[in-house]
Amino acid sequence: MNRARFDTHPTHGTATATATASATLFLSVPAAATLVRRMGLAHCLAGMMEALRADFLRWPEFEKSARIAHHAPEGVVELMPVADARRYSFKYVNGHPGNTALGLPTVMAFGLLADMATGAPLFLSELTLITALRTAATSALAARALARPGSRVMALIGNGAQAEFQALAFHHLLGIERMRLHDVDPAATARLRAHLEGQGLAIDVCDSAREAARGADIITTLTADKRRATVITEDMLAPGMHLNAVGGDCPGKTELAPGVLRAARVFVEFTPQTRVEGDIQQMPADFAVTELWEVLAGRRPGRRSDEEVTVFDSVGFALEDFAAMRFMHEAALALGLGERLALVPALADPKDLFGLLEDEALAPDAPRPLRLAA
Amino acid sequence: MNRARFDTHPTHGTATATATASATLFLSVPAAATLVRRMGLAHCLAGMMEALRADFLRWPEFEKSARIAHHAPEGVVELMPVADARRYSFKYVNGHPGNTALGLPTVMAFGLLADMATGAPLFLSELTLITALRTAATSALAARALARPGSRVMALIGNGAQAEFQALAFHHLLGIERMRLHDVDPAATARLRAHLEGQGLAIDVCDSAREAARGADIITTLTADKRRATVITEDMLAPGMHLNAVGGDCPGKTELAPGVLRAARVFVEFTPQTRVEGDIQQMPADFAVTELWEVLAGRRPGRRSDEEVTVFDSVGFALEDFAAMRFMHEAALALGLGERLALVPALADPKDLFGLLEDEALAPDAPRPLRLAA
Repeated sequence: MNRARFDTHPTHGTATATATASATLFLSVPAAATLVRRMGLAHCLAGMMEALRADFLRWPEFEKSARIAHHAPEGVVELMPVADARRYSFKYVNGHPGNTALGLPTVMAFGLLADMATGAPLFLSELTLITALRTAATSALAARALARPGSRVMALIGNGAQAEFQALAFHHLLGIERMRLHDVDPAATARLRAHLEGQGLAIDVCDSAREAARGADIITTLTADKRRATVITEDMLAPGMHLNAVGGDCPGKTELAPGVLRAARVFVEFTPQTRVEGDIQQMPADFAVTELWEVLAGRRPGRRSDEEVTVFDSVGFALEDFAAMRFMHEAALALGLGERLALVPALADPKDLFGLLEDEALAPDAPRPLRLAA
Repeated sequence: MNRARFDTHPTHGTATATATASATLFLSVPAAATLVRRMGLAHCLAGMMEALRADFLRWPEFEKSARIAHHAPEGVVELMPVADARRYSFKYVNGHPGNTALGLPTVMAFGLLADMATGAPLFLSELTLITALRTAATSALAARALARPGSRVMALIGNGAQAEFQALAFHHLLGIERMRLHDVDPAATARLRAHLEGQGLAIDVCDSAREAARGADIITTLTADKRRATVITEDMLAPGMHLNAVGGDCPGKTELAPGVLRAARVFVEFTPQTRVEGDIQQMPADFAVTELWEVLAGRRPGRRSDEEVTVFDSVGFALEDFAAMRFMHEAALALGLGERLALVPALADPKDLFGLLEDEALAPDAPRPLRLAA
């Protein structure tokens, strides 16, 4: 009769060692922040962009599905799973526009990376911070393929929680030198501007989206309203612009006027999902789009001329979280960050789950100290 | 400019307190085992059965869906979400028949309970051990409605990791006094028998499923083969028997001969899922079944006579994990068990995610100690 023993008997060295070996690595919010600080944000964004590129190039190898949503009057809770033959990942993420008033982030997320061969959970990670990094790195990856070479000025419309990450990703990974900021909330712009000070970026604070767009090579939209908004209209476009449309990412939430989409070539992550969640939800079901992975893989052209207007209609896809977690897992192991959690049992005899309870629970005279209401 | 500070600045009392208040409670495998030991297994099973009953009675209030599966040659990884207006839960669970040879459990699970009003993750719990308890408590709940009153003898066919939990649930919650054990692996039966010693149960070890079924009031099947097996055939039935069919729980995996199902009244958890995963996958799509919640709610009859043969074709449904986590969360809080994890950020300013990184990451001379391969 073998029994796995975990916490109570430190003298049982072998079982404890087994438990440790298979325990899940956990990266908390402060540990993830420490990792990014230690690695340096620019370096971290660059590594994540490369991980994203590598996984986008393996696109056909993944078993993909749309996210699974549960709705409440206050917001939505979603699961985003994806897998290849070797690894599985999912992200848990909510979207509750009213959370800010309660002192909570609008979006909170965590995720898991698991081994497809055994189902063992390998890596549990905070993903609120990491999602901001992966979204910015994905935007930069798309812009590298789609923006006009030599782009130096970006309009950043919507200066909320993700704005710094987008600004610094485009600065470090694409060479953007000037940011034209606008938000309906001046305090958000002030916070963003303060965070960007000393980063080597010239900053213009603009009174309107229209003013911000003027002279920009790239327009990034990051607005958060859960309604059909029209942040960018056709008359704000200039030849050769690239639009990085990040804020329109669920049914009923858009940022671009239909005329903008008609005037541009539109690139998406995973077409079936973007037709429901992206800005193209406003367009007919057969509206032509190109998937980003096809451009990265050289199967279809990205930007074809300096005159063309391009749109990356980004909604966030599970594969991006997969790549981000793969990168963060490696980085956490390399830097010795994170802690081990006994999320699943390490059993000396895998058929003896009951052994976890040991004998004292079963003795007829075992103490039963508490009666809980059902 | 507000900044949330977590681990690095213990002197920032306010931010630390905020982080603690909203942190997720985590119940590890050893903590869950400790909880069950402290509460007493019988008491824990009874409380869980009442939690299950209460949530089954609220059946129409839940937003239900089938599980989301990703398949590998070695096995399957699944997510099982469910929600009502107030709470959301999901379970991560794998099924890898070959894991035992690697020293890993065939089935490993964990799950989350979250707040629908904010999306905040409240309770992260191991569910490998807890699933065994909730499955046994669900079986006992169904048998209380479906088995012949006065049932005293149960055949337990398949003596793997879940067998002790089923045996003790039926002993404590239903008054079963005698267990007739059979497994193709005598070592499994020996382990089970040893664990059940001194529990007030009479034990018969049987050479075959047929022998085990002889004289039983209830037959519980818990076999694990991922194939169409026929553990119980029609000629093994006696009038008034109740079958608790737990092992047939995914496509291609069954335990009961079709004749057994035709000879019985069949009860299920969530019909659309059971038609795919349960023993009734062998039957036509219009094969008559009754959902357990309808019986518990008094909407449809359970057992109608002492002669009737009843089958609970159990596959495990997300609502059961919801109820189990709800119960364990309350119990962990009451007993002061579990630890707090910073799974999502607690931000002093919820719009200032970037503040987590603080300034040192951004200084142009910040150390960049490591280059990771993409």
